[in-house]
Amino acid sequence: MRAYYKCARCGYTADTNVWLWRCPRCGGPIDVIIEDLRLTLSEQRGLWRFAGVIPAKPLVSLGEGFTPLVKARFLGENTYLKLEYLNPTGSFKDRGSAVAVSKTAELNAKAVVEDSSGNAGISIAAYASVAGIRARIYVPRDAPEGKKSLIKALGAELIEAPSRADASKMAIGSIGSDEVYIGHTWNPWFIQGTKTLAYELVNQLGHAPTSIVLPVSAGTLLLGLFIGFNELMNMGLINELPRLFAVQVQGFAKLYEELHGEYRSEPTRIADALRVSEPPRISQMINAVKSSNGDAIVVTDDEIVRAWKYMFRSGFIIEPSSATVLSGYWRLMGNNKINRNDEVVLILTGNGLKYVDLINKYVIAESNI
Amino acid sequence: MRAYYKCARCGYTADTNVWLWRCPRCGGPIDVIIEDLRLTLSEQRGLWRFAGVIPAKPLVSLGEGFTPLVKARFLGENTYLKLEYLNPTGSFKDRGSAVAVSKTAELNAKAVVEDSSGNAGISIAAYASVAGIRARIYVPRDAPEGKKSLIKALGAELIEAPSRADASKMAIGSIGSDEVYIGHTWNPWFIQGTKTLAYELVNQLGHAPTSIVLPVSAGTLLLGLFIGFNELMNMGLINELPRLFAVQVQGFAKLYEELHGEYRSEPTRIADALRVSEPPRISQMINAVKSSNGDAIVVTDDEIVRAWKYMFRSGFIIEPSSATVLSGYWRLMGNNKINRNDEVVLILTGNGLKYVDLINKYVIAESNI
Repeated sequence: MRAYYKCARCGYTADTNVWLWRCPRCGGPIDVIIEDLRLTLSEQRGLWRFAGVIPAKPLVSLGEGFTPLVKARFLGENTYLKLEYLNPTGSFKDRGSAVAVSKTAELNAKAVVEDSSGNAGISIAAYASVAGIRARIYVPRDAPEGKKSLIKALGAELIEAPSRADASKMAIGSIGSDEVYIGHTWNPWFIQGTKTLAYELVNQLGHAPTSIVLPVSAGTLLLGLFIGFNELMNMGLINELPRLFAVQVQGFAKLYEELHGEYRSEPTRIADALRVSEPPRISQMINAVKSSNGDAIVVTDDEIVRAWKYMFRSGFIIEPSSATVLSGYWRLMGNNKINRNDEVVLILTGNGLKYVDLINKYVIAESNI
Repeated sequence: MRAYYKCARCGYTADTNVWLWRCPRCGGPIDVIIEDLRLTLSEQRGLWRFAGVIPAKPLVSLGEGFTPLVKARFLGENTYLKLEYLNPTGSFKDRGSAVAVSKTAELNAKAVVEDSSGNAGISIAAYASVAGIRARIYVPRDAPEGKKSLIKALGAELIEAPSRADASKMAIGSIGSDEVYIGHTWNPWFIQGTKTLAYELVNQLGHAPTSIVLPVSAGTLLLGLFIGFNELMNMGLINELPRLFAVQVQGFAKLYEELHGEYRSEPTRIADALRVSEPPRISQMINAVKSSNGDAIVVTDDEIVRAWKYMFRSGFIIEPSSATVLSGYWRLMGNNKINRNDEVVLILTGNGLKYVDLINKYVIAESNI
């Protein structure tokens, strides 16, 4: 396996023995391109079972990957729930963090700097801790208190910014020597981690599903799935790309707007994990949805709360931002984008155990939003 | 596989086509005994991969089992962490609930009644929800608020009792017709679920470890491991029983006291999940520790807080009651009950995401307890 950086915009290439988070020539998002890809499964459990297709040394693990895939007959005969919220820190971000932090360890970084609405910050903090690397995490001031606490408890330095966009600017502006910007919305290694979800779904199902419904903000999971399934296609291991259906939320629906035009609304008050307004990889995200014959939709806070309650009453403890996929699934069934016989996987990305306050308000007291 | 109930105390036997939670003759704890045991692995993932050794129909699943086993070189060269807190509702109890609730569904129960310090209540509530069975859960008034909220959010009826012991009495006293008492401290099916942890460890390691360190209150995990490993011995699949080291906490150290004499102390203020003062299966617990050449120890709240911080700084988000095993491990290393070369598994039983308040107080602010 030979890997190199390539700029998605201007075509600049570079060796992966240095840390790049964007193109040094044009400032565009940069990818890790792999040549001579062949799938060999390692003896290891979890994400690193796919080490053969990940161009980073498997230096760091907290037990991420191989999350349960549960058949959900209460939703549809061929509908599955992928419990990504059972990753070690409670979100799918752990796939990206395992690979990205491993790469920083390989390159001897002393500190990593991240900006996040919460979950990615928790995840990077945990993986940096186990790697013995310092972490500094920038979050918007109104991130859930519990998420901020977890970042600090995991040993990272927490810095609060006025908004999610400011967190990103402040993080990028703060990078010192010996530090690397690991920001997951840009990071090509992070996507090398999230792509394992495609491999894992094929491993668990024995084939690729018809459709996948997932929450999308910065697109790290969308792009990971798209790259992973394309690699599997190119190796002849699957015959067709699953349709990728991206579910977005009020006020942070850039992908939807690029495809369908402006969507005016108040910003979401409940899907805190999906608040990236200017995803750096938007062009790639549009391509992923279009090439897979998928779509993007926006669900309202009302719909999210309804789906969230429903998932609790079905036994699944997820966060509001993950309940979006059930709202999306219902909507896609309603308008025949998803059909009764399709094999559909809903990706449940974040753990509801982080949300006791909102659970009291919306699930138990059944307040309106 | 033929299975029947047998009273551990008076030898009474009965067919398993009815629900029994204790011996109808003498009131002692009742076991499910299996004849003609042979290990055949099913195609299913997770706990029900071991359906071949579980005498209940696999009717209910939320994706429990096959939790990560992580090598923890930061603790010892041959030391592993078993991340049972990554089960669907955040605790190992999901193994017991999956089997016990499946059995109640098989017997067409309309409602289940449980008493719990919190985690088992959350777990039973979730599995009852997915099975479409009503659940009524009795908890002590001072159970963590977050745990009480989760039980309600999952659709169960929550009833608060003055103490953990009262919760048990009230639950047992409340059983109506068409309802079954599923109380995990008595329930023989629950242990048929927890025993899968023994099978899973052997499956993941390829053999049985030298020693296992686990938190113990009512003994459901201890007895599950003991029964599981004994079944594996009897089938000739392992050569030796792992030594089972039970870690208990201040004020709830019945097993320790039976083995070593009275332990006077204030009750624990932090290990809320381990507060069973009169475990119904105490005789079996003593036998499990003695027969496996293990031991019971008591760790203090100070030791627990120290271990809890250490685990967070290492990237593992566990609950205080699970940090007990690290305190226990350190103590057992110190007094040479565990040696440097032993292959040791620490069972991390509960998820720390349920504990934001205590994280702020003890892990971040570093308050003394």
